[in-house]
Amino acid sequence: MKLKFLGTGTSQGVPVIGCTCEVCTSENPKDKRFRSSVMITTEESRKILIDCGPDFREQMLLNHENNVDIALLTHEHNDHVIGLDDMRPLIFKSGKDMPIYCYHRVGQEIKKRFPYAFTDVRYPGAPAFELHEIENKPFKVLDTEITPVEVIHYKITVFGYKFKNLAYITDANFISDTEKEKLQNLDVLILNCIRKFDPHPAHFVLPDVIALFKELKPKKLFLTHISHHLGLHDIEDKDLPEGMHLAYDGLEIEF
Amino acid sequence: MKLKFLGTGTSQGVPVIGCTCEVCTSENPKDKRFRSSVMITTEESRKILIDCGPDFREQMLLNHENNVDIALLTHEHNDHVIGLDDMRPLIFKSGKDMPIYCYHRVGQEIKKRFPYAFTDVRYPGAPAFELHEIENKPFKVLDTEITPVEVIHYKITVFGYKFKNLAYITDANFISDTEKEKLQNLDVLILNCIRKFDPHPAHFVLPDVIALFKELKPKKLFLTHISHHLGLHDIEDKDLPEGMHLAYDGLEIEF
Repeated sequence: MKLKFLGTGTSQGVPVIGCTCEVCTSENPKDKRFRSSVMITTEESRKILIDCGPDFREQMLLNHENNVDIALLTHEHNDHVIGLDDMRPLIFKSGKDMPIYCYHRVGQEIKKRFPYAFTDVRYPGAPAFELHEIENKPFKVLDTEITPVEVIHYKITVFGYKFKNLAYITDANFISDTEKEKLQNLDVLILNCIRKFDPHPAHFVLPDVIALFKELKPKKLFLTHISHHLGLHDIEDKDLPEGMHLAYDGLEIEF
Repeated sequence: MKLKFLGTGTSQGVPVIGCTCEVCTSENPKDKRFRSSVMITTEESRKILIDCGPDFREQMLLNHENNVDIALLTHEHNDHVIGLDDMRPLIFKSGKDMPIYCYHRVGQEIKKRFPYAFTDVRYPGAPAFELHEIENKPFKVLDTEITPVEVIHYKITVFGYKFKNLAYITDANFISDTEKEKLQNLDVLILNCIRKFDPHPAHFVLPDVIALFKELKPKKLFLTHISHHLGLHDIEDKDLPEGMHLAYDGLEIEF
């Protein structure tokens, strides 16, 4: 299987509009971060998208991706769902409603935020989604076993997703001991890390992630959902403990 | 005053994800069209944004735009409003709610689609908007006189906006005789044109726009809200009647 980072940025993206800091003005492509999303390619070349934020169209075009078989949503925040309307070309081409897997709560929010996709008589050219409610237990789709990992993000629960020996967790500031059981000794752990120092009410910061790396002992850990406050990619990446890396847009991992 | 086209594409943008037609695979930057939006710069260098679609962040970054003083919305369709959350960096920097001018109906829809921006207790980092309901009569803001022009788009009304002797109309398939009075003998008329031939239930197509050009007699007419079915920019632009042009992303007009 393969995982490609379509975006590794926090909710405002990097650069931030109007910001003149050294990260936002860096010319290194690794310092340009779309909103966090990944594309999983299964053994049978099926495509599983995790999250569909505002950069979805650009992410698909830049990565020459032409298909999504199913989408998994981690939670309902704007930067993880608001690109759903841009799935229309894929929906029109396939002639099928786009299958979306998420919490019941997230599905309800999608219905509120894209009401025109769920009316009995739809506007010509409206998108069409097939919502699948999932709970915190493993499920199989596209011949692929997927294990949700429930984490806490400020005041809400968020699903991370585990495939084989890789787990992708974005938007967490707390993981319970029960859920940590699913994350022991992974080959690859992907974790959100918004900035370097100051604690954040909804996101891990670098010291939290280093502590989790030591505790959970994945072979490799990649940081994502990164803000401009984490610093320049090439400098910060070198300073991380061995086995830890900053992810960047376009990075591909085989697992 | 100046008007800059931040986007000149229809709701799916050009290229369309997964499309291999000659327009979608063209390497001419004029064939790459973000969703329709323009930035007006007033005599006092204030910034008026018209519409805030999914490409808003990219449009601001690519055009080195760092500020929006007010936003005018034409209507509530996804490709014209769904980027509003990406105004957050501007809202945080100014410390003020972003003023948005639109129909009452559109304001109600914004409240539904961005509910977390209108709750009494907001999530940390949520955007904040100041909604101003407008009607079909001239109003003055930022020392600038703005005249709405009400047009029909399938089954809904949409506002075009006129500044001095320029009018910007996107998403129309019908303009009443009363509203046409506002559009006589303009210096610049900007009109939506989705494709070349087949009639469309919600948008003007090229023969409609050519007929309006002859009827309303603007000195110049620019087409916007263009799909890949209109053809290659450089070829189609040459074939238009004298005084008519395809707009393209980044085009700037002084008026």
